[in-house]
Amino acid sequence: MKKFYLLTPGPTPVPQDVLNEMANPIIHHRTPNFKAIFKETNELLKYVFQTTNPIITFASSGTGAMEASVVNTLSKGDKAIVIIGGKFGERFMEICKAYGVEVIEVKVNNGDAVDSLVIKDLLKKNSDVKAVFATLCETSTATLTDIKSIGEVIRDTKAILIVDAISGLGADVLKTDEWGVDMVVSGSQKGLMMPPGLAFLSVSKKAIELVEKSTLPKYYFNLKKALKTLEKDDTPWTPAVSLVIGLRKSLQMIKEEGIENVYARHAKMSEATREACKAMGLTLLSSSPSNAVTAAWSPQGISGKEIVKFCRDKHEVFIAAGQGELEEKIFRVAHLGYMKKFDIIIAISAVEIALKTLGYKFQFGKGLAKAEEILSTC
Amino acid sequence: MKKFYLLTPGPTPVPQDVLNEMANPIIHHRTPNFKAIFKETNELLKYVFQTTNPIITFASSGTGAMEASVVNTLSKGDKAIVIIGGKFGERFMEICKAYGVEVIEVKVNNGDAVDSLVIKDLLKKNSDVKAVFATLCETSTATLTDIKSIGEVIRDTKAILIVDAISGLGADVLKTDEWGVDMVVSGSQKGLMMPPGLAFLSVSKKAIELVEKSTLPKYYFNLKKALKTLEKDDTPWTPAVSLVIGLRKSLQMIKEEGIENVYARHAKMSEATREACKAMGLTLLSSSPSNAVTAAWSPQGISGKEIVKFCRDKHEVFIAAGQGELEEKIFRVAHLGYMKKFDIIIAISAVEIALKTLGYKFQFGKGLAKAEEILSTC
Repeated sequence: MKKFYLLTPGPTPVPQDVLNEMANPIIHHRTPNFKAIFKETNELLKYVFQTTNPIITFASSGTGAMEASVVNTLSKGDKAIVIIGGKFGERFMEICKAYGVEVIEVKVNNGDAVDSLVIKDLLKKNSDVKAVFATLCETSTATLTDIKSIGEVIRDTKAILIVDAISGLGADVLKTDEWGVDMVVSGSQKGLMMPPGLAFLSVSKKAIELVEKSTLPKYYFNLKKALKTLEKDDTPWTPAVSLVIGLRKSLQMIKEEGIENVYARHAKMSEATREACKAMGLTLLSSSPSNAVTAAWSPQGISGKEIVKFCRDKHEVFIAAGQGELEEKIFRVAHLGYMKKFDIIIAISAVEIALKTLGYKFQFGKGLAKAEEILSTC
Repeated sequence: MKKFYLLTPGPTPVPQDVLNEMANPIIHHRTPNFKAIFKETNELLKYVFQTTNPIITFASSGTGAMEASVVNTLSKGDKAIVIIGGKFGERFMEICKAYGVEVIEVKVNNGDAVDSLVIKDLLKKNSDVKAVFATLCETSTATLTDIKSIGEVIRDTKAILIVDAISGLGADVLKTDEWGVDMVVSGSQKGLMMPPGLAFLSVSKKAIELVEKSTLPKYYFNLKKALKTLEKDDTPWTPAVSLVIGLRKSLQMIKEEGIENVYARHAKMSEATREACKAMGLTLLSSSPSNAVTAAWSPQGISGKEIVKFCRDKHEVFIAAGQGELEEKIFRVAHLGYMKKFDIIIAISAVEIALKTLGYKFQFGKGLAKAEEILSTC
């Protein structure tokens, strides 16, 4: 019998109600019917993003919206600060460089969060910096950045704050307006409980001032065009109709649960996963763990990739290995989106069986007991 | 009771079997399971594109792949010929200009196809032209371009031929390799019977030579990266997993019917629609009609938009108005993708009722009889 469990940091499981919505006959996008759906979806997005700013929906993966945040605000030779704590910070840097933006790299060790005072200092020394790029949850290291404190040091400068919240949105607290985040990038296949294929970008008034001046070339990701059509609940190009319709449903589910409850659920699942790993004698990678995903060092002599492969091939449980230089060294378990306590129990159980079988010495059920203890109160 | 009929040139109806495929639980993209699906899908795409060239699948609308064809082959200041017979030819021109490509515009009247000798002549006078952009089916005017003859005049020059086959693919004959088309752009929501959200780009060896030299900035649509990952049945960014899985099913359906039969079915539906319009006393817009869509001038005193609105609001039949300057002047009926003879009967019947109600003088059933006569033999 085949029965699989998806516990990766994207794609994440999609609720059956959302899948059913998308299995309805396709409708045309230039109709009152679709426009009403799109309008409702955009309002729901604002609730989840905690912003009153307009949010653009692209038919693309999250990387497309990351590119949109760069090419619509900057011009060739502009200076930007990019915080790099892993693969996704690197991606912002690569996009900036592909377009001739001068990058001040702020490198932090794998698993560590940046100190906002470093950014404050850099902004003082470089008053011509136009944008600061940060990552809410650096998925590759399961690390949370303190966006609130970065927002505070940027707020009174000329620079805008652009945050990649692709994997963090809906798991880690993000108060876009309250914290002064000018642009939030996200994607559909993480906390929003949808298949991949949609990307999002919120745009503050301060960001729009830069959009007006930006001369980098763009067409598909042209934000001015998208903002103009958004006023009429429309899109410049054909939207991914079925995905937008599914998204409305998943956002309705989030609103019904309440965003604070969604955060709390993720915090609890995250805590349970971390404590279970520790109870198994494992060490965590991150000193600033995210609510979306947990990364643990694999025990000496066992490759992280091997653990992931074992879980996949023997249990049909899909967790993730590390990326790049971390590929063999860690494994990652997501607690993200359409998941609740028993998904964590499954994940820990699968990891325990894998570790034991691969030769790691510990007592069966150690992690499970700890996870259960923490999850029992929610 | 609600029961609607989608007869627009994109999105087009999606077969229930395809919708069901996409309603399965989401799987991870970096798995042997997904890679096998992606590989099979790519082979099926080659069959429909009639090419042995690699085909890249983007998570984007068709416009994204149009942009990819420009930014990956050209450099700033390069010269390109763009054939402009309507809104979608214009789009290629706009993309080129957004990136500083020098455009030689070849304007043809609405509804007319370009004469390939004009292109031959221009290429002789401008031996430094790097690319010629054409549109297989110019959806805005329902007009077919003779790509074969354009391929002949380009074949022995240094220029590459880039064809927008977004609405034409699977409806109008397109022999990519035989006709020497270096890049074919397409999208999922037309002849491929899928929801919108995927775009495609095939790449010939001649095109790859330009890709190697192109210096226009790009990141999300970077073709070199996509070609490299494609060799491992992988993608640079998270693919739109559920859409790819649906696409495999719809392409399997096309292959089962046989591409020549698919063309023949579209040709017959197209002929029936045109002849029915004529039997109603209407005049067609195009002197070179496409198999994908038919455009007819609306009768004096009746706006095309009004006909479309009547069909939508009174019949739940979705046909299309004109675009831009043609908005009030024409109406368009698609015969594209998952449609067969009785969809045409529905379309003609809805148009007849609309025209009669809006005051046009003709005999009920004139168009229907003609359509039925033509469709009876298939």
